[in-house]
Amino acid sequence: MPDHEIFELGDVVLQSGLTLRQAKLAYKTYGKLASSRDNVIVMPTFYGGQHTDTEPMMRAGRALDPARYFIVVPNMFGNGLSSSPSNAPPPFDRAAFPDVTLYDNVVCQHRLITEHLGIDRILLVVGYSMGAQQAYQWGALYSDMVRAIAPLCGSARTSPHNHLFLEGVKAALLADGAFGWYQTPPIKGLLAFSRVYAGWLLSQDFFREGEYRKMGFASVEDTVRFFEGYFRQRDANDLLAMIWSWQHADISANPQHKGDLAAALGAIRARAIVMPSTTDLYFRVRDNELEVAQMPNAELRPIPSIWGHVAAFGVNPPDDEFIDAALRELLAG
Amino acid sequence: MPDHEIFELGDVVLQSGLTLRQAKLAYKTYGKLASSRDNVIVMPTFYGGQHTDTEPMMRAGRALDPARYFIVVPNMFGNGLSSSPSNAPPPFDRAAFPDVTLYDNVVCQHRLITEHLGIDRILLVVGYSMGAQQAYQWGALYSDMVRAIAPLCGSARTSPHNHLFLEGVKAALLADGAFGWYQTPPIKGLLAFSRVYAGWLLSQDFFREGEYRKMGFASVEDTVRFFEGYFRQRDANDLLAMIWSWQHADISANPQHKGDLAAALGAIRARAIVMPSTTDLYFRVRDNELEVAQMPNAELRPIPSIWGHVAAFGVNPPDDEFIDAALRELLAG
Repeated sequence: MPDHEIFELGDVVLQSGLTLRQAKLAYKTYGKLASSRDNVIVMPTFYGGQHTDTEPMMRAGRALDPARYFIVVPNMFGNGLSSSPSNAPPPFDRAAFPDVTLYDNVVCQHRLITEHLGIDRILLVVGYSMGAQQAYQWGALYSDMVRAIAPLCGSARTSPHNHLFLEGVKAALLADGAFGWYQTPPIKGLLAFSRVYAGWLLSQDFFREGEYRKMGFASVEDTVRFFEGYFRQRDANDLLAMIWSWQHADISANPQHKGDLAAALGAIRARAIVMPSTTDLYFRVRDNELEVAQMPNAELRPIPSIWGHVAAFGVNPPDDEFIDAALRELLAG
Repeated sequence: MPDHEIFELGDVVLQSGLTLRQAKLAYKTYGKLASSRDNVIVMPTFYGGQHTDTEPMMRAGRALDPARYFIVVPNMFGNGLSSSPSNAPPPFDRAAFPDVTLYDNVVCQHRLITEHLGIDRILLVVGYSMGAQQAYQWGALYSDMVRAIAPLCGSARTSPHNHLFLEGVKAALLADGAFGWYQTPPIKGLLAFSRVYAGWLLSQDFFREGEYRKMGFASVEDTVRFFEGYFRQRDANDLLAMIWSWQHADISANPQHKGDLAAALGAIRARAIVMPSTTDLYFRVRDNELEVAQMPNAELRPIPSIWGHVAAFGVNPPDDEFIDAALRELLAG
């Protein structure tokens, strides 16, 4: 039994000009929609994650409290639950799955929220990593209905170095000769992908200080094995589809903002607290700093952490508290 | 015609307990040995590099001036010129080549300098990256004959995260099914290796600011292609052999210091100016800071650069000037 619902989008013409046929948006809601319909939080998913992976953000005592808010978690295309290479019907499945942008994702999420759930006001769009990129996109496109955004360890546009890091993990996966129209997963490539990725996820200081013990791991290698397991649950084509979305993330690359990033950032009138991690190796404080300077109602509030990109993953209590304090401020309005 | 000389070491018993048979140390000398035999600089090579790659450090006008100094550049085992998987005679060639530590390297280099070249005083051991690791090792083992060391973008012991980054590049190479006892090079793996590596070599800021244009490259991808070309010149087994040396680098892992890093660092009585790059992603300022605190005559002097690990590669004039000023201080004594 799936623990989520599907919103049937029909055929969706994507930015790429290709059609995503019988597009499905998998989502889960947490908590109860108030009769005033004004207690809504939207939390898009991150790279490789599914809605269940966002649940640590809603643990008892945290700011995103389902007892109080109606939290909608739309799954990103390519994540194996919404339309993805691994679940699309042939012949547009697997390596033939069309390229999907985060703009495409957010436009479809907006349809879910408005057409399907009948909601026209959102208290907060919060997201981690690629989820943060979608939060920015929500803010730029639907400023009238979004009161606040909280991008955690993400950026409005993928930076050149971030793009390059993804080139590396992609190359590691594609080096496996089994990759392509495989019947059995290209395990060697998936493991190489994970091992490369593990080097980027956490900071140099994290490993020097042995912080992985706080995650319940005995050694660096033990930590790497965890991430191998995590990514091996995903389909290789799904992982590549999401990388394509990530590499092309740019909230201004759409008909409304025509590539003008300053204009897209300027359009985010929602109050924003932008929270990079000070030691994140690919979503950098400096990138957010440049963005916040162009946003009318934004504050940069770096998470002081040596947990690198994982600071906002919901597994380090001091970081969780830092983030929750900001989210409570935003939710208090 | 080779442009270098070979010192025949005979059979060398390595730290691993294996024998490197008919071991050959390829080296090149630059400049002239003074009759007083006291103008000697030793400059070990870095990962993937050969003596020719150290020549930018000796360009006209730079501190390491062959018109004044006798500069000995010993090639690291595994680099394709000294004994390496690619040039060792069967059956101990290729994937059967024994593991070699940097301690093994430095002990053999010491034999070259003393037995073969008849030198007993060294003004300076300077090295970049794994060359810096060898400079530390020289300082710890042969304090009586080394007056100064200048480790550039390196460390006395490879840090846990540095080890992990190398796990990633290694996994990318090994994901190529052609890897092993190949007759033709595992090109796909070499390219994946290079693409992963490229993400680590330079800083996030370097790419944001488009500094690659100062290297003569038109784009991020153009930069990556350069590094693909660079590493593709090397043999895959050679690259892996040098990674093994790098991952196991630890100046205290030998009979003299028995794993006591503080003791090994304390044994470096030579004057040292330790120069990490402020934005290096794998040889970190913090690692050097911890080391310098345990060295009796050392100064930490970070290179203020956004060129990441490449700051000391000899291709960015402001960084070159910063480094040369320190080298001149050390050479002035």
